[in-house]
Amino acid sequence: MMVHLESLSLRFNSLPQIQFKILDQTLLPWKEEWVSIRNVDECVSAIKKLKVRGAPLIGIVASLSLALSSIEGSSIEQIEKEAKDLIEARPTAVNLMHSISRMLKVVENIKSQKIEIIQSKDLSTLLLQEAIQLFNEDKKLCDEMSHFGSELILNGDRILTHCNTGGLATAGCGTALGAIIKAHQQGKNIHVYVDETRPLLQGGRLTAWELEKNKIPYTLITDSMAGHLMGTGSINKIFVGCDRIAKNGDFANKIGTYSLSVLAHYHKIPFYVVGPSTTIDWNCQSGSNIPIEQRDFQEVRGLSGAMGEWIWAPQQAPVYNPSFDVTPAHLVTAWIFNFGVFKKIDFESGKVQLCMP
Amino acid sequence: MMVHLESLSLRFNSLPQIQFKILDQTLLPWKEEWVSIRNVDECVSAIKKLKVRGAPLIGIVASLSLALSSIEGSSIEQIEKEAKDLIEARPTAVNLMHSISRMLKVVENIKSQKIEIIQSKDLSTLLLQEAIQLFNEDKKLCDEMSHFGSELILNGDRILTHCNTGGLATAGCGTALGAIIKAHQQGKNIHVYVDETRPLLQGGRLTAWELEKNKIPYTLITDSMAGHLMGTGSINKIFVGCDRIAKNGDFANKIGTYSLSVLAHYHKIPFYVVGPSTTIDWNCQSGSNIPIEQRDFQEVRGLSGAMGEWIWAPQQAPVYNPSFDVTPAHLVTAWIFNFGVFKKIDFESGKVQLCMP
Repeated sequence: MMVHLESLSLRFNSLPQIQFKILDQTLLPWKEEWVSIRNVDECVSAIKKLKVRGAPLIGIVASLSLALSSIEGSSIEQIEKEAKDLIEARPTAVNLMHSISRMLKVVENIKSQKIEIIQSKDLSTLLLQEAIQLFNEDKKLCDEMSHFGSELILNGDRILTHCNTGGLATAGCGTALGAIIKAHQQGKNIHVYVDETRPLLQGGRLTAWELEKNKIPYTLITDSMAGHLMGTGSINKIFVGCDRIAKNGDFANKIGTYSLSVLAHYHKIPFYVVGPSTTIDWNCQSGSNIPIEQRDFQEVRGLSGAMGEWIWAPQQAPVYNPSFDVTPAHLVTAWIFNFGVFKKIDFESGKVQLCMP
Repeated sequence: MMVHLESLSLRFNSLPQIQFKILDQTLLPWKEEWVSIRNVDECVSAIKKLKVRGAPLIGIVASLSLALSSIEGSSIEQIEKEAKDLIEARPTAVNLMHSISRMLKVVENIKSQKIEIIQSKDLSTLLLQEAIQLFNEDKKLCDEMSHFGSELILNGDRILTHCNTGGLATAGCGTALGAIIKAHQQGKNIHVYVDETRPLLQGGRLTAWELEKNKIPYTLITDSMAGHLMGTGSINKIFVGCDRIAKNGDFANKIGTYSLSVLAHYHKIPFYVVGPSTTIDWNCQSGSNIPIEQRDFQEVRGLSGAMGEWIWAPQQAPVYNPSFDVTPAHLVTAWIFNFGVFKKIDFESGKVQLCMP
């Protein structure tokens, strides 16, 4: 649980109080520093700088920051404007949109009651309740996903994972990494291969850190080694997370995921994607409709982020830097949701389909 | 031409003189610094530290250093011992073994004449002649390969390449990158996608530098983006070099090459490997016989090399760090040699076969 509710008071006859801190992920694994998020601007900046990341977690942190804004006395108009700013901080992540729209629904309910003078304490109390509800729901989603995911992990498995999908990416134990951690806790003897995940090295920095914290045996590799390890039989399962799932099962995830899905297909290695129902975009028909963010060129010219900047390429090197890529449904063995496991064969045959709950 | 024969004197009645310098590739693209190689120890160290790299180039530099050793008065026994040290500096590269065995043959010829008192000036003159011969031969090989390779490149091609296979890897214009440069010089409108090639970033540092020097349009990407670009139709050809080719066409090249070959196969993109005849190991039946070096773990835990050290992973993170991987012949569209282009279909049908010249 990487969102830390340090101080929380919910009283209906006085203004609710909240302070919340996030573990600054740009400083891991060298330094464990908790930083306060004091307003929406700080939250937008923390999302853009990847101080807080992981599709589920940013939705919750964004919601908490909106509640905070309301507590501090922001008007409804201001909150609606801030909600927009938050969504634009990470347009690919559907969980963020999902959480924010839950918060906006609270605002809408207040508005539709046509109360002439908005009682800000009611609004802020309700927004805070909703944000905490989202936080608790995500923890529950993680428990459910990791339960279903861990059932697919057997003693002796050698699992490849990409990016970071653990406690640092969610309010709970994680998605793909959550399933791996759960399997380890069940006493299964597993080994994890960790893609370092260039350019921002979420694997090398964050997943390696989480695996050490959980005392799970692992091997760190560069992204280019995954195919070689599949070819030599060192990997027998792949678990990845997702930032958005389209209705047809296509999904966006950290750049490099698509390559892994093709390599897995060629080597006949099961390829699992783990995500909560909040990651499904019911308005998105297929992967081709998912927007892909382009990030700062310096990240590919070298190392760039809060850890500093170290450029090794020619200074003005032309760069392509998409945050995500899209993996088509036909390359997925199964989707592991909080509400169960969907196998591709059942999905393709129409035996099961994704339906809005 | 990145080996620079700064001073050279060949006189049969006096000792031959040689000084040679290499462009320190660990400092590129920030700094163009030429460093002298004054003995075999410095050469072994330069190879291990990748100050000089590229399978063809290290063979030539190693040979020059053996000639230098002889000029400096080393005994035959000493030269034979040093030859062994040089081969062990980079066991995967067959060009190195090939060059060194050419040098040792000179020694052998002297020995078999059973001259009781070894005339060191004769030996050193002959060794220097042989080293310079190897240097000139490699330049010619590059011209021939780039000629054949460029014929496969068409106006409008968008070519992916991996690692560095240009003037920095050979005595001439290069292998895979040589073909690309030649095609550009022929006036073809091409665009090059450059894999940064973790962990040592030969793509991001060296290939990007060479393309800028040659004014060829390019885009730098992380290794994990290659599949995504193939999937979106941005790449229509792949050219890579090789460190060793087995008799059956399997070949070893920089880690990550195998992944590219599988991705190319899936996306039906032609995958070309370019190498001189000196890269063929006639004693090696298939790729499974090629030894793969493991390198320093720090390279994967972060950045490590002459450019300094910057570790981002947990300090003791367990690491796998193979220098090379092996691509099986059936994933190659064609081999581009100095003696012609071998298409897989001809190779598989037995219409052509690799024969020792």
